[in-house]
Amino acid sequence: MKKEKISSAVIRRLPRYYRHLDDLYRNGVVRISSSALAKSMGLTASQIRQDLSCFGGFGQQGYGYNVERLRSEVADILGMNRAHTVVILGAGNLGRALIENFPFRANGFRLIAAFDVDPVLVGTRLGGVPVYHTQMLESYMREHKVNVGVLTVPGPVAVESAYRLYECGIEGIWNFTNIELPEQKMESVKVENVHFADSLLTLSYMISASAEEQL
Amino acid sequence: MKKEKISSAVIRRLPRYYRHLDDLYRNGVVRISSSALAKSMGLTASQIRQDLSCFGGFGQQGYGYNVERLRSEVADILGMNRAHTVVILGAGNLGRALIENFPFRANGFRLIAAFDVDPVLVGTRLGGVPVYHTQMLESYMREHKVNVGVLTVPGPVAVESAYRLYECGIEGIWNFTNIELPEQKMESVKVENVHFADSLLTLSYMISASAEEQL
Repeated sequence: MKKEKISSAVIRRLPRYYRHLDDLYRNGVVRISSSALAKSMGLTASQIRQDLSCFGGFGQQGYGYNVERLRSEVADILGMNRAHTVVILGAGNLGRALIENFPFRANGFRLIAAFDVDPVLVGTRLGGVPVYHTQMLESYMREHKVNVGVLTVPGPVAVESAYRLYECGIEGIWNFTNIELPEQKMESVKVENVHFADSLLTLSYMISASAEEQL
Repeated sequence: MKKEKISSAVIRRLPRYYRHLDDLYRNGVVRISSSALAKSMGLTASQIRQDLSCFGGFGQQGYGYNVERLRSEVADILGMNRAHTVVILGAGNLGRALIENFPFRANGFRLIAAFDVDPVLVGTRLGGVPVYHTQMLESYMREHKVNVGVLTVPGPVAVESAYRLYECGIEGIWNFTNIELPEQKMESVKVENVHFADSLLTLSYMISASAEEQL
């Protein structure tokens, strides 16, 4: 497959493409025009054609896109078939919400263990996933192939926890703490931050900008 | 204050600017050059100057930026001083994580009530916030000025819950369900989605792209 350097804006849109294509696929849609796909995604048809051409462009003039094929190509580009294996550090409210409700498997990830220091949790299972004491992290990681760590620990131990994952050879960290991790010092690790505050402030901006327009 | 039409990419970066400037301010930094600010944020100095010029540009040649002033200007643009009032729908694990741990106030939001259907929770307080039965939502909204609703309900009731907030005259919805809300039908409402799956798939992409580079 032809692959050019893909811009980060396109990469940010790829998961949305996947979600929409997956919906269409599950609803039995066989093919779709770029304009119909654009409409359902709130983008322009030319934007869609441009985005998808970045990684090969499978649309055909007068036919549109084959949904199943495009869906599987996007999944492939997103690395959803790489059998990522995940552990989660921190089984507090947020950690538990992810363990019990987030569809890791549907996104190509297998969650195999949780770690926490709470004696009430250690030794139990949450949503089918065993909870170990955090001090067992290194020995667990030696015995299991794990490539992604989810950080849902309290802020004060975020950096230390990230380092421990890094030392264990983790490839990626999904960071839910509001702490910026020292990425320069863990160069081999990809970090994806979920910054709730940034998202809420974006909402605040949209509300204010809209209120000002109405003045 | 001069305000041009700000691009959505710049808007997405504004909260990060705020976070960095707030950190600097709390650490007693009075002024900072665009190159130093750029370095700490992983951007280029020209990018910083360009971004900040979009809303007036307060840097001075040879001086840099006054941290306190720039921080307060960014807060102003983000609408952080609008005294947003918030209710949260759904006090399950994720709702509780937000209620108990998310610093609403530091971001300019006041969380005043939670709604859930669980009889064990209704009538209690979580993190100081009263929990009411969801059927009380409309009467509560009539009696209180609320402009933002947080959606942490289960997927199957997400759309219905959003409509109820819309009918109550809500200005913004912070949507944590993985359901796309029918935004066209609630045009007056600004919706900000936190799509965990999109974030995880972005991480998946980064890991795959990095693995391929190493081949």
